[in-house]
Amino acid sequence: MTRELTVSIDAMGGDAGPGIVMAALSRVLERQPGVTFLLHGDEAVLNPLLDRLPKVKSRICVRHAPERVTMDDKPSQIVRRGQNTSMWRAIECVKKGEAGVAVSAGNTGALMAMSLLQLRTIEGISRPAIASIWPTMRGRTVVLDVGANVTATAEQLVDFAVMGEAYAHAVFNLERPIVGLLNVGSEDMKGNDAVRGAAQILRTSRLPIAFHGFVEGNDITEGLVDVVVTDGFTGNIALKTAEGAAKLVAGYLRLALKRSLLGMIGAFFARGALNTLKRNLDPRASAGGVFLGLNGIVVKAHGGTDEIGFAGALDLAIEMASADINARITRDRGVIEPVLEQAVLT
Amino acid sequence: MTRELTVSIDAMGGDAGPGIVMAALSRVLERQPGVTFLLHGDEAVLNPLLDRLPKVKSRICVRHAPERVTMDDKPSQIVRRGQNTSMWRAIECVKKGEAGVAVSAGNTGALMAMSLLQLRTIEGISRPAIASIWPTMRGRTVVLDVGANVTATAEQLVDFAVMGEAYAHAVFNLERPIVGLLNVGSEDMKGNDAVRGAAQILRTSRLPIAFHGFVEGNDITEGLVDVVVTDGFTGNIALKTAEGAAKLVAGYLRLALKRSLLGMIGAFFARGALNTLKRNLDPRASAGGVFLGLNGIVVKAHGGTDEIGFAGALDLAIEMASADINARITRDRGVIEPVLEQAVLT
Repeated sequence: MTRELTVSIDAMGGDAGPGIVMAALSRVLERQPGVTFLLHGDEAVLNPLLDRLPKVKSRICVRHAPERVTMDDKPSQIVRRGQNTSMWRAIECVKKGEAGVAVSAGNTGALMAMSLLQLRTIEGISRPAIASIWPTMRGRTVVLDVGANVTATAEQLVDFAVMGEAYAHAVFNLERPIVGLLNVGSEDMKGNDAVRGAAQILRTSRLPIAFHGFVEGNDITEGLVDVVVTDGFTGNIALKTAEGAAKLVAGYLRLALKRSLLGMIGAFFARGALNTLKRNLDPRASAGGVFLGLNGIVVKAHGGTDEIGFAGALDLAIEMASADINARITRDRGVIEPVLEQAVLT
Repeated sequence: MTRELTVSIDAMGGDAGPGIVMAALSRVLERQPGVTFLLHGDEAVLNPLLDRLPKVKSRICVRHAPERVTMDDKPSQIVRRGQNTSMWRAIECVKKGEAGVAVSAGNTGALMAMSLLQLRTIEGISRPAIASIWPTMRGRTVVLDVGANVTATAEQLVDFAVMGEAYAHAVFNLERPIVGLLNVGSEDMKGNDAVRGAAQILRTSRLPIAFHGFVEGNDITEGLVDVVVTDGFTGNIALKTAEGAAKLVAGYLRLALKRSLLGMIGAFFARGALNTLKRNLDPRASAGGVFLGLNGIVVKAHGGTDEIGFAGALDLAIEMASADINARITRDRGVIEPVLEQAVLT
């Protein structure tokens, strides 16, 4: 159900560079017929790559950007002198309305800083958040913030709830996604001031959001709720810890199978199933994070992504741009405004 | 290398009750010859159980406690009126010097509140922490705090570093365990005020601690450092999220194997290896958490533990009591005192 849409791509971002971007594009072009792509980067590199894909050339336009953001660039510095980078230009097209969404696999901090500076936050939203989609026992769950901010007030957590709910509505096609606040226990008195304050606002507001209450770390992968809200410090650590734990279990499995002849025989027969598991667990294959709360949509693909992961990020970007997520955020933000004002007064 | 030691046990704690405590004791008594055990709980329940183990009876002493703490008791309430509970009495024996360590599988919040009230913190340490041992790619890592506190200042994180280092020294037999601070990135400028402040103190103090710097969530299970320091909010969420992720991977594996005939054949041959994996991943089999920073040692077994898990908690308690961990904490705390004073002044 894709309408006419332009996706703006930082073709020089990520560890692997333009090669995987091109490979991803050749996958996506067929299944996304109504979409055109603006590729920002070094034309001396991009044009020869594009020449190898004559069939798709008509729907791809290269825009030369002489510089690129590296993974080592400090966000605070590159944001000031990076106007000639492919990353800046990719976001700029969204700002100017030439594209509906921007995608980059580059430096997360720089991408957030440049997005914030160019697109600014939606009125009423003080801080953007990075949302990621986790696989769960029951399907998928949105977790945010996973790293845009290192602290969050009660009010900012409520904003994240609004943003995450709108995101889950758009990508999971749920009428009323269920929202939980990440905490160290499910009882009301548990947690720090920010999470208890946010719970209080979410309970008393007339927000058209299905608020579940507190959820714990293990509830994320259980799929207890559709949206898990947390501050960027905790969310980033939870995300990376989960990736590490999954890798550890896969390592245990490998060791356990290698330790005995029967284990090795079993692994031989089950190699198809084990390869499926391996693919499911590879974080490079995940679509990446979405920056929410800005006047425009920016999708961050995993820095170490491969062509499948980058293609997933492009699909996600197209899905996001087709859903009018920011209208829902603005509507819900208006509903909580009086509650927040009252919370400040009392 | 066990010397004469008495272990004080809350025999009524945990979901499973005194049965698994007795079963665990019969496992531990043989491999821990120099140790005697004080069992606190309802003697009408405990004595008949003990009669079935005549061989070991001489090394176990039952002390009647008419009440018990339930999993639903609120810590703030039970701590005031719980002096007749088996949990309170188990800790009391450590306070009076009758036992070298206390063990309970009961309500964590109540156990911490009662331990804090009776044992108090070591001089100079403002808050106790709960330390847990995680399996890693390279062995084991101590993570603390995993839930005693919902916030931590820079100074408290430094205290946790000192306590965690002493713990790793004692249980891993490492001369200089390597300590890392959990953060959202490894660069100096990353993170919130507390972690950056703690890093600053750990770098400038003359603490005899091998401080690695910041580590990220995935570094925990990589085994990059021996001790991972964090606040109790983040640590608790990281711990539960990791448990959830491990469970999800195991669930994926089950599904993947069931999906094809070859997968099922493979699983049949590899069932020994898969059962080993299942046991390794069962959180009930882990030894539990240790309360650090108090004038006495308290070990918290997992609430849903089985006899193997409770036996592991008893072994850990005996190991802890045999090592003079609090002397090391007091020594290191003395070294950082001048640095902390200066940090406050400047």
